[in-house]
Amino acid sequence: MDKKKLKELLIQVKKGKIEVEEAFSILKNLPFEDLAFAKIDNHREIRKGFPEVVYCAGKTKEQVVAIMKRLVAFSTNSVLATRADKEIYEAVAAEVPNAEYYETARLIVVRKGEQQKKGNILVISAGTSDLPVAEEAALTAEVMGNRVERLYDVGVAGIHRLLSQKDKLEKARVIIVVAGMEGALASIVGGLVDKPVIAVPTSVGYGANFGGLAALLSMLNSCAPGVSVVNIDNGFGAGYTASLINRLGEIDK
Amino acid sequence: MDKKKLKELLIQVKKGKIEVEEAFSILKNLPFEDLAFAKIDNHREIRKGFPEVVYCAGKTKEQVVAIMKRLVAFSTNSVLATRADKEIYEAVAAEVPNAEYYETARLIVVRKGEQQKKGNILVISAGTSDLPVAEEAALTAEVMGNRVERLYDVGVAGIHRLLSQKDKLEKARVIIVVAGMEGALASIVGGLVDKPVIAVPTSVGYGANFGGLAALLSMLNSCAPGVSVVNIDNGFGAGYTASLINRLGEIDK
Amino acid sequence: MDKKKLKELLIQVKKGKIEVEEAFSILKNLPFEDLAFAKIDNHREIRKGFPEVVYCAGKTKEQVVAIMKRLVAFSTNSVLATRADKEIYEAVAAEVPNAEYYETARLIVVRKGEQQKKGNILVISAGTSDLPVAEEAALTAEVMGNRVERLYDVGVAGIHRLLSQKDKLEKARVIIVVAGMEGALASIVGGLVDKPVIAVPTSVGYGANFGGLAALLSMLNSCAPGVSVVNIDNGFGAGYTASLINRLGEIDK
Amino acid sequence: MDKKKLKELLIQVKKGKIEVEEAFSILKNLPFEDLAFAKIDNHREIRKGFPEVVYCAGKTKEQVVAIMKRLVAFSTNSVLATRADKEIYEAVAAEVPNAEYYETARLIVVRKGEQQKKGNILVISAGTSDLPVAEEAALTAEVMGNRVERLYDVGVAGIHRLLSQKDKLEKARVIIVVAGMEGALASIVGGLVDKPVIAVPTSVGYGANFGGLAALLSMLNSCAPGVSVVNIDNGFGAGYTASLINRLGEIDK
Amino acid sequence: MDKKKLKELLIQVKKGKIEVEEAFSILKNLPFEDLAFAKIDNHREIRKGFPEVVYCAGKTKEQVVAIMKRLVAFSTNSVLATRADKEIYEAVAAEVPNAEYYETARLIVVRKGEQQKKGNILVISAGTSDLPVAEEAALTAEVMGNRVERLYDVGVAGIHRLLSQKDKLEKARVIIVVAGMEGALASIVGGLVDKPVIAVPTSVGYGANFGGLAALLSMLNSCAPGVSVVNIDNGFGAGYTASLINRLGEIDK
Amino acid sequence: MDKKKLKELLIQVKKGKIEVEEAFSILKNLPFEDLAFAKIDNHREIRKGFPEVVYCAGKTKEQVVAIMKRLVAFSTNSVLATRADKEIYEAVAAEVPNAEYYETARLIVVRKGEQQKKGNILVISAGTSDLPVAEEAALTAEVMGNRVERLYDVGVAGIHRLLSQKDKLEKARVIIVVAGMEGALASIVGGLVDKPVIAVPTSVGYGANFGGLAALLSMLNSCAPGVSVVNIDNGFGAGYTASLINRLGEIDK
Amino acid sequence: MDKKKLKELLIQVKKGKIEVEEAFSILKNLPFEDLAFAKIDNHREIRKGFPEVVYCAGKTKEQVVAIMKRLVAFSTNSVLATRADKEIYEAVAAEVPNAEYYETARLIVVRKGEQQKKGNILVISAGTSDLPVAEEAALTAEVMGNRVERLYDVGVAGIHRLLSQKDKLEKARVIIVVAGMEGALASIVGGLVDKPVIAVPTSVGYGANFGGLAALLSMLNSCAPGVSVVNIDNGFGAGYTASLINRLGEIDK
Amino acid sequence: MDKKKLKELLIQVKKGKIEVEEAFSILKNLPFEDLAFAKIDNHREIRKGFPEVVYCAGKTKEQVVAIMKRLVAFSTNSVLATRADKEIYEAVAAEVPNAEYYETARLIVVRKGEQQKKGNILVISAGTSDLPVAEEAALTAEVMGNRVERLYDVGVAGIHRLLSQKDKLEKARVIIVVAGMEGALASIVGGLVDKPVIAVPTSVGYGANFGGLAALLSMLNSCAPGVSVVNIDNGFGAGYTASLINRLGEIDK
Repeated sequence: MDKKKLKELLIQVKKGKIEVEEAFSILKNLPFEDLAFAKIDNHREIRKGFPEVVYCAGKTKEQVVAIMKRLVAFSTNSVLATRADKEIYEAVAAEVPNAEYYETARLIVVRKGEQQKKGNILVISAGTSDLPVAEEAALTAEVMGNRVERLYDVGVAGIHRLLSQKDKLEKARVIIVVAGMEGALASIVGGLVDKPVIAVPTSVGYGANFGGLAALLSMLNSCAPGVSVVNIDNGFGAGYTASLINRLGEIDK
Repeated sequence: MDKKKLKELLIQVKKGKIEVEEAFSILKNLPFEDLAFAKIDNHREIRKGFPEVVYCAGKTKEQVVAIMKRLVAFSTNSVLATRADKEIYEAVAAEVPNAEYYETARLIVVRKGEQQKKGNILVISAGTSDLPVAEEAALTAEVMGNRVERLYDVGVAGIHRLLSQKDKLEKARVIIVVAGMEGALASIVGGLVDKPVIAVPTSVGYGANFGGLAALLSMLNSCAPGVSVVNIDNGFGAGYTASLINRLGEIDK
Repeated sequence: MDKKKLKELLIQVKKGKIEVEEAFSILKNLPFEDLAFAKIDNHREIRKGFPEVVYCAGKTKEQVVAIMKRLVAFSTNSVLATRADKEIYEAVAAEVPNAEYYETARLIVVRKGEQQKKGNILVISAGTSDLPVAEEAALTAEVMGNRVERLYDVGVAGIHRLLSQKDKLEKARVIIVVAGMEGALASIVGGLVDKPVIAVPTSVGYGANFGGLAALLSMLNSCAPGVSVVNIDNGFGAGYTASLINRLGEIDK
Repeated sequence: MDKKKLKELLIQVKKGKIEVEEAFSILKNLPFEDLAFAKIDNHREIRKGFPEVVYCAGKTKEQVVAIMKRLVAFSTNSVLATRADKEIYEAVAAEVPNAEYYETARLIVVRKGEQQKKGNILVISAGTSDLPVAEEAALTAEVMGNRVERLYDVGVAGIHRLLSQKDKLEKARVIIVVAGMEGALASIVGGLVDKPVIAVPTSVGYGANFGGLAALLSMLNSCAPGVSVVNIDNGFGAGYTASLINRLGEIDK
Repeated sequence: MDKKKLKELLIQVKKGKIEVEEAFSILKNLPFEDLAFAKIDNHREIRKGFPEVVYCAGKTKEQVVAIMKRLVAFSTNSVLATRADKEIYEAVAAEVPNAEYYETARLIVVRKGEQQKKGNILVISAGTSDLPVAEEAALTAEVMGNRVERLYDVGVAGIHRLLSQKDKLEKARVIIVVAGMEGALASIVGGLVDKPVIAVPTSVGYGANFGGLAALLSMLNSCAPGVSVVNIDNGFGAGYTASLINRLGEIDK
Repeated sequence: MDKKKLKELLIQVKKGKIEVEEAFSILKNLPFEDLAFAKIDNHREIRKGFPEVVYCAGKTKEQVVAIMKRLVAFSTNSVLATRADKEIYEAVAAEVPNAEYYETARLIVVRKGEQQKKGNILVISAGTSDLPVAEEAALTAEVMGNRVERLYDVGVAGIHRLLSQKDKLEKARVIIVVAGMEGALASIVGGLVDKPVIAVPTSVGYGANFGGLAALLSMLNSCAPGVSVVNIDNGFGAGYTASLINRLGEIDK
Repeated sequence: MDKKKLKELLIQVKKGKIEVEEAFSILKNLPFEDLAFAKIDNHREIRKGFPEVVYCAGKTKEQVVAIMKRLVAFSTNSVLATRADKEIYEAVAAEVPNAEYYETARLIVVRKGEQQKKGNILVISAGTSDLPVAEEAALTAEVMGNRVERLYDVGVAGIHRLLSQKDKLEKARVIIVVAGMEGALASIVGGLVDKPVIAVPTSVGYGANFGGLAALLSMLNSCAPGVSVVNIDNGFGAGYTASLINRLGEIDK
Repeated sequence: MDKKKLKELLIQVKKGKIEVEEAFSILKNLPFEDLAFAKIDNHREIRKGFPEVVYCAGKTKEQVVAIMKRLVAFSTNSVLATRADKEIYEAVAAEVPNAEYYETARLIVVRKGEQQKKGNILVISAGTSDLPVAEEAALTAEVMGNRVERLYDVGVAGIHRLLSQKDKLEKARVIIVVAGMEGALASIVGGLVDKPVIAVPTSVGYGANFGGLAALLSMLNSCAPGVSVVNIDNGFGAGYTASLINRLGEIDK
């Protein structure tokens, strides 16, 4: 239930088209629904414009399935589950119709509402090994209604691969840069453009990358302004934030 | 020199109103100007929409003054120097007319061009001790042409101070959250709004805050999506990024 | 053997109802019992009011079984083993009657004495993935004789889920807050109540949570006073400490 | 203004003894008072039983003085400022009558209301160098209305100094252990008593103590249950938490 | 070949009892023997009084077998291999007669020369989970010719278990303390005795013990002098060092 | 395609021996070739003198095979893939003729062009457990056309093993030192020679080596000048850098 | 008061040469003496063979003076204060006769009893900058009655300086190695000798030595067995431990 | 005394032109000279081709002067002292003729022998604040006889400043890259050239750069091969290593 749907309901009540009792029974579960092990935040779609997203790590299959079923029942928009392995997907698919699985990105998506794509988000990755995180970002943004372009494997060891595609940088409203190892790509992109850059450090690498710490610190210390950073391997967070930013170009029109 | 000014110059050349030699002498210093100890990136204003910003830490007074003079001479927009102590400001003020100093924020500003303020950026701080960073963010955004609102000292130890001002959250296009200690405020704000939140961890605190590490990690691990993070105490970076985002609501109209 | 039982024994000796030799044979094993690989601290129940608790990690099945058997034989109160996997439980169950297993919490419990529940401890968790740690805390406290209430999945991404249950906060004598990721929930709760809050960081999360470090530092730097912290994932320690605090409200009456 | 005072006011309004307008003018500033650079949380005394405490680090003298004046005007209980150097104290003393200064503990106290001391909190320190933190804890607890006993310089290098004073351990309701270096004292005390122990790591030491990290980790990993931990050098937090716990023995009677 | 054996050989040469050629063929492999993947340090027994010890981790079975065979052929004293899993042991046993395996300690021992035990080394462990490391220390010391006494599971959570055995502390020439979690036992023992204490932190624990870092830092910061520290889980190193120290009491007589 | 081959092509075009269209079709794929998941940097051989090297970790078998095929087709020099497990090798071998596998070093090599070996690179390792990294370095250098000598298992616990082979140190143009644990060997070698030393810390060890951090920090802090360092376990990087240095002795002649 | 003196006193009591009352008044202050801010551990000399040593850091001048006076009055052996700056020394010297100051080592010594030097401790330092720590170790050992030899500035950048002095290594019973930067010297020495080596990392260096962490980790990971480690810059601890070891060669004779 | 000078001396002895006694008196101080607090490594010039360099940090003025005097007396080449503040320089200048001071680089240089400059080393810096480290590198290399070119302030925020100077990259034999903050410049340069790159992380920056750690990790994880790294702020080490490499192009000719 999003803001529009809620307002309509209230207008119906005011006009007497819906009985108070009926409205009450619809709304009473709204703020959250208690599944004992989880309080589903049905109100989130109204506050944030997108329903609660299920973080599968550390949850049992049964818990994920139960939460997904309630979210799908209640939401106006598509429903997303992140960090889902194949086994979890299969458990969900058995009970939730139309659940799709994106293996590289480890995402489960249940599409709802219009699937229109607006604006332009560019997802850049430094290397092929960064693909899972880059795809998590790209698909999250797409599911949230954004047009997404991909520019993969353009790391700084061969910087001409990036420089030859400046038109893609030009066209984007907001850019996501996904890079492991030293994460230098975020600074390079940040130095070339006049739009917000969301940097995603990945855990790709070994030794003194300390599980992504090297790329994380590198991106936080970017000498190019306009770069902000999300957690290591957090493609979802980058896609979500980029979506909020990209929407600004739409909403205000 | 920004994009508009550059295009006009080229049109003048095309129309024959400016001689090639004259245009050449204007443009030849454009990409960067070599001061031996510094290569001033005059081209940055064209690429990024705002001139190079001077990071004063680790530079001598003489170096800052020389760089500021050239930047002021060349830029269309206001010129900014960060992390400037009073002594540096005085050296600059002696040679650069109209240099203003903001002591709390340690900023030197030389205002140029129209000072119109657009859109709405909200800067929230957790405590009074976070003020220097919050002001660096707010002033940077203002100097870059954004309307800025402040909501200070609303940390989570007394969360009603924040909740009572939800209208300010509503009105903003993008929100900067400045917090030290455990930095929880970023997650709270991120959970309440449907707009991008830029979190700035500060070094306020002691002991196991390890110079801002606690707030930094806290913000990077925010369970509320839509939060991205800049370096510890990097108010400037937050203000700059917020400006890029806020402009999106303007540019596309 | 607890304080009361010990005093009775001594009174019996004084009254001549128990022979010195007999009392000696009961007491001689009291301070500790030597199993070669372990010195069972039978005296702990007298000192601490609750028998030694078996930490199963790093012990062989045979060692855990041997220790449990002696503790059960000697204790007046229930006996607890933590971090027990199913295989260890089965080995214990084969030799110790009435051993129960709580799989989520990885606890083995052998209930002894009265199972009365007193006072009120509230266990709050931020997310469903924090359940194992929250349940370890809740069950430890229950086994130690405390009334325990649970309030799960009320993390700060949807803070209304917590705010709507303020009555539960009101009723508790001491509150345990279990949270991973950025651990902000501890500060929020700490800011709302006038009772001691015991914060348990969990390792739930990824990347820059560094195995729970993010939540740990966050909780240690809480800007709300009245919050103290135990080790990452240490639900047992939180339940134990909460029990000591909750008992204060009883003992002094 | 605490809970009792607030209820009385409302009763007066109900009985017609106070006009609504008058009550309104008293209450309208209640939730917080906006000093531009600070929002004073006047409501905290009602929520937490003790007024907001001023953390002086990072605040200007002027800010501390302004906040202290408003807090003293509004509070029913004593008002406290922590981490205050002598210069700040003198600025406060010039405008706030009865402000006392405790140099070792770096505390400013303005005593209000009854100064009765209840229950029993024991503050133990490992070495003489830990005194500033131990005193911050002890004085905080005393100002909050608790009877406090001190047992200083009983570190584990000469454990008989502690063991010879077991009666002090016996008498306390809650114990604060302040220790730097390896912080082993917290585990020793935790192993001896059946009451909650609040451990305060200090930054006393050098080299691989890494500013108190060694003691902090040591205390978090205490093998004796019943120990919870506050931030490095956070004597105030320990005193505050101990007060909340000690009060439990009183309130419920 | 140790110092004594070498001197005898040279005396034989001098007396003409052994031909130069013969002596040469014995000595020519002495300094080290090259196995392509390893240079066996046959000279070590002369320099250090004990032959090279094989660290099995990261070596293939074939490499360990080849090195062990050469060491056994050349050494006067017993030969030791550490961190050997069962599979490696079986490969060694197939080719090296008399190879014994100590599973808990993960040691392979091939006893040679007199097995006399001298002096007195006491190995203390904090908990049952520390046994593998404690046994590695104890067995290493025994194999090197020292009398070893064990005192296990006497951690600080029940300090009376240690205090009741002060006679064992009295009798030892050097004490090894093995402890995980907060490692406080090293400081306690260090404060009680006037002999060198070698502290071995173990990785026993979880969360903020960070793989043994907590115990390591704790032991390095011991407030009791006379404590020195070896690497986390390095029972071998502790046993070896204790042997060098214990021998001092013998050699000089 | 390397620099020489490229120049020849252009000369052929100039002389009219190759048609523009033909040259164009050869060159149009040059800068990089887009495989959707990877942009193969065909230009790298011209810029760097050696083709792009495939880092297999985090890539699927299919991705590695596809990239290897294109690189082999395009390169003048041998093609290298690092961190390849046996399964990946088998997938490559099925489609790329002449692919060789070096199991210890986890390298796949496809030899092309002349296999002449020039100059002299010495690879020294501290222990047998360091072999995989040492071999990765040695083989990388050999494949890149360098003469390589090996000196293994000469760690500082038996420093005579190194000192007895000073002639090998003398003959080398550049030396690679591979060492885990405390990594002291790099400093020793650095103090003995007047040539560049490239130090490779390895993750060999346990406990406080923290995955190679100990050796890394040790090497970075070498008191002997002339030592530079690559990432932990980065044998490839060391071999590559040594090759660039060794070539200097050739190119300039 | 040491063990011998105590026994004599008791014998005197037994023989009736000293009245019980008199003996009582001597002994009643023995276990510790309470100075309010410090509990002086007079019993330590009996337990440890050397009186309590004063750690001056974090103590006021007045506290140090008061403690020193009592220790000097009570001890049979020399009294030591570490980390004393000149100002503290002067305050002590004004009240304690015969107090000597060693500026480099920052030690105050009050010599008592026989100043005989026994056995042989060798203190080796890597560089001239390590002198303060090396001297703290050497002087501590000397004051405790040990013969001490120094071998300074023999770091591994010029290893021949060490190798040329092997006779000094031969003669020592125990060796202290003091080194900053990469701390490799400890491993080298450990590989050359068959006696215990106590390694002292120093904070000498910069950048990635992280205040001595590099040398500390290096020494803990020494591949040469027989090396144990004390805290960074802890010359005192090394001297103390070496004294305990050196004495073993004496006591048992 | 370098290799050539030593050989000549020996030839003179052989030819009878120099008496043995005279040669002996020249050579007897060669290996090192003992100043009590320092052992001057006169032999280093023979081993390493350049005399010992004095690291001034942590040494007294008197010590530096004494060492410098002996080095200047003995060396054939120029003598260098690093990390020297002005006060130390003045003490040296008072006793050592021709001592020059380079304030930015904190170097003292005493030039000796021919000052010919060979080959080509390029020193690149990211920002003006990195100048002190860049100059330390450049001057060290110059003093050691290398031709040095500088390219300063070409950080990645304005990458065109670097790309426009590719000819400088082309001409160099070895390149030093000096960068703080995120240190991305090293990877960019490494990706553009086919020569060895020595990366020097600097401590320039704040917050999450953690004293240069961010740049250090970034450079160690460079995705461009051919990059090796020295300690944070270690301009001297980079200049020294670059000199060893640059000389390779000369020596072999």
